[in-house]
Amino acid sequence: MHTDLSRKFGIQYPIFGFTPSEHVAAAISRAGGLGVLGCVRFNNPAELDDVLTWMDENTDGKPYGVDIVMPAKVPTEGSAVDLDKLIPAEHRAFVERTLAELGVPPLDESAEHAAGVLGWLHSVARSHVDVALGHRPALIANALGSPPKDVIDLAHEKGVPVAALAGAVEHARRHVENGVDIVIAQGYEAGGHTGEVASMVLWPEIVDALGDSAAVLAAGGVGSGRQIAAALALGASGVWMGSYWLTTSEYKLGAAAAGPSSVQRALLGASSSDTVRSRIYSGKPARLLKTKWTEAWSKPDAPSPLPMPLQNLLVSEAHQRIAAADDPEVVAMPVGQIVGRMNEIRPVAEIMAELVEGYEQAVDRLNAAR
Amino acid sequence: MHTDLSRKFGIQYPIFGFTPSEHVAAAISRAGGLGVLGCVRFNNPAELDDVLTWMDENTDGKPYGVDIVMPAKVPTEGSAVDLDKLIPAEHRAFVERTLAELGVPPLDESAEHAAGVLGWLHSVARSHVDVALGHRPALIANALGSPPKDVIDLAHEKGVPVAALAGAVEHARRHVENGVDIVIAQGYEAGGHTGEVASMVLWPEIVDALGDSAAVLAAGGVGSGRQIAAALALGASGVWMGSYWLTTSEYKLGAAAAGPSSVQRALLGASSSDTVRSRIYSGKPARLLKTKWTEAWSKPDAPSPLPMPLQNLLVSEAHQRIAAADDPEVVAMPVGQIVGRMNEIRPVAEIMAELVEGYEQAVDRLNAAR
Repeated sequence: MHTDLSRKFGIQYPIFGFTPSEHVAAAISRAGGLGVLGCVRFNNPAELDDVLTWMDENTDGKPYGVDIVMPAKVPTEGSAVDLDKLIPAEHRAFVERTLAELGVPPLDESAEHAAGVLGWLHSVARSHVDVALGHRPALIANALGSPPKDVIDLAHEKGVPVAALAGAVEHARRHVENGVDIVIAQGYEAGGHTGEVASMVLWPEIVDALGDSAAVLAAGGVGSGRQIAAALALGASGVWMGSYWLTTSEYKLGAAAAGPSSVQRALLGASSSDTVRSRIYSGKPARLLKTKWTEAWSKPDAPSPLPMPLQNLLVSEAHQRIAAADDPEVVAMPVGQIVGRMNEIRPVAEIMAELVEGYEQAVDRLNAAR
Repeated sequence: MHTDLSRKFGIQYPIFGFTPSEHVAAAISRAGGLGVLGCVRFNNPAELDDVLTWMDENTDGKPYGVDIVMPAKVPTEGSAVDLDKLIPAEHRAFVERTLAELGVPPLDESAEHAAGVLGWLHSVARSHVDVALGHRPALIANALGSPPKDVIDLAHEKGVPVAALAGAVEHARRHVENGVDIVIAQGYEAGGHTGEVASMVLWPEIVDALGDSAAVLAAGGVGSGRQIAAALALGASGVWMGSYWLTTSEYKLGAAAAGPSSVQRALLGASSSDTVRSRIYSGKPARLLKTKWTEAWSKPDAPSPLPMPLQNLLVSEAHQRIAAADDPEVVAMPVGQIVGRMNEIRPVAEIMAELVEGYEQAVDRLNAAR
């Protein structure tokens, strides 16, 4: 399984694996894909620096990438304290009331209260780029579309290609005009921020619209070798998988003890129908695991979610409390519809071997149908 | 391009084409696929009988199928007049007001007022089965899931396999338990009645759940040979295409004059983002072309759609008025996200040749990537 793009990156398989866990990212790279570390959780750039040093040392010299969350336009941005003032009291009251109803206790007095995910504040995302370029990233991907022009130029000066997510053809075209090298075509079924057009329609549409001007990675709904075969049949140069790594043995974020975390247990039990696309996580439509938390926000008495970045500031302490409560029925977690296929905890290497084998079988099946 | 299923049906390609037009259905069968005639528009069984006689005579002896819309449970059903009483005045007023605002004139005094689509009333759908079995259908498909047990038994006695649409794994399993032979796995991106799970995830999930117990046709998002290759790679035994035939030269329903109808012109101009999933057409969620008509129903002052079959009775005269008004900006038409690829009026045979060629190229691409 190889394409021009996998050859360009010097990786064995055109499988790009996005994950917030450096342990998972490194395992993906070691297993022949390209592990892409999500940086949005690093409010402190020095922590990212340390983690990337660890990545440099634990990827057997194989390439890896980083994923930032940066809007193309530089917003007028205040500190978290300024932004806090823009959150209506009604919203805060709803969050408090809902957490109480769901049995989520307040944080320990000793716990440090979360400042919210600052990674999608422009200044913080820019620090992620600066820190990353001090290491050896093979790719900078941006989850909010084109990064600003000067960030693209800076990456290109260092010889690092830039990828950007797109949920519609016009976004993909704009990214390429802005200098983006690789478009990640992310269908409706994907976890996290996602558009309305499903992968089966979106992928070939973006492939055709871009022609030779940029490579296309297929995202949204990929968790088997058959789906990789489908992606390449539809014209993509590789796949971008995110959700599927959340139930790997290497994924330890949010784990309170040994064994699967409450989030992983919730994911293992979910079917493909157990997700919802909602603005409650970040302020922009994102697909989340359907739990008592997301259901509360879809009731008639729930307020409308706030715009980015206010919504995440509103719910950041709630997310912290939910994580501490460790209840699989009350979870705040982005995941795609592929969650229905995530039914056991397995090592990354085992998944990669299965993806490759499934791909081969799918191509055999197609050849037999000729 | 052939599978066990295409061999079983004695057709050249595993391409099943659903269409309300007998001219399109016959052309699909003549071109090597299986044309499946949608019966729901035939309020009068005698008219269906005549049309199927025409099909018998115009398919070069090749097989064709019929598609009915029949709930598995026999409802307590009144006449159209009884049902009319259940429609709230507020809903009727909204429809009248909206049509006036959109500049849709009343019907000519001379026009026969539509009785609504009665095809999804149980008694009418059952008459469609009886009429069809007097001809030589190779398949009876049901757009509302499993038909009633006695209908399945009747079809099987005549040697006719039964197919049923499913938008979720549990529906697919239930269909097979009920005796259905072929499950049409219809993803979120499909036109008409559709569920929440997108094709990339749904198709392989249903294939795996059913194993050898039933063949799976892939529906939702198919309009190119690449997408057929993707469907077969994902384990489907063939594809079920509906929307894509709406812009064929043979499709003349709703055409007021020579050349493309107002509906076809609207479809030709639409992108993949120009659809909406809504209950306004039938009472159940169905994907429609996004036009001024659907937009009116999504405004805050719009009432909630009524349950099936009341909603269609409510809007049936509106549909007739909209059709007569012949305005591409005010259209009531089910179509899938593949509408973005429907950009010219072409004969069925040309589309079939392109599908086959595109399939071959996709398989070549996959083999090159090995």
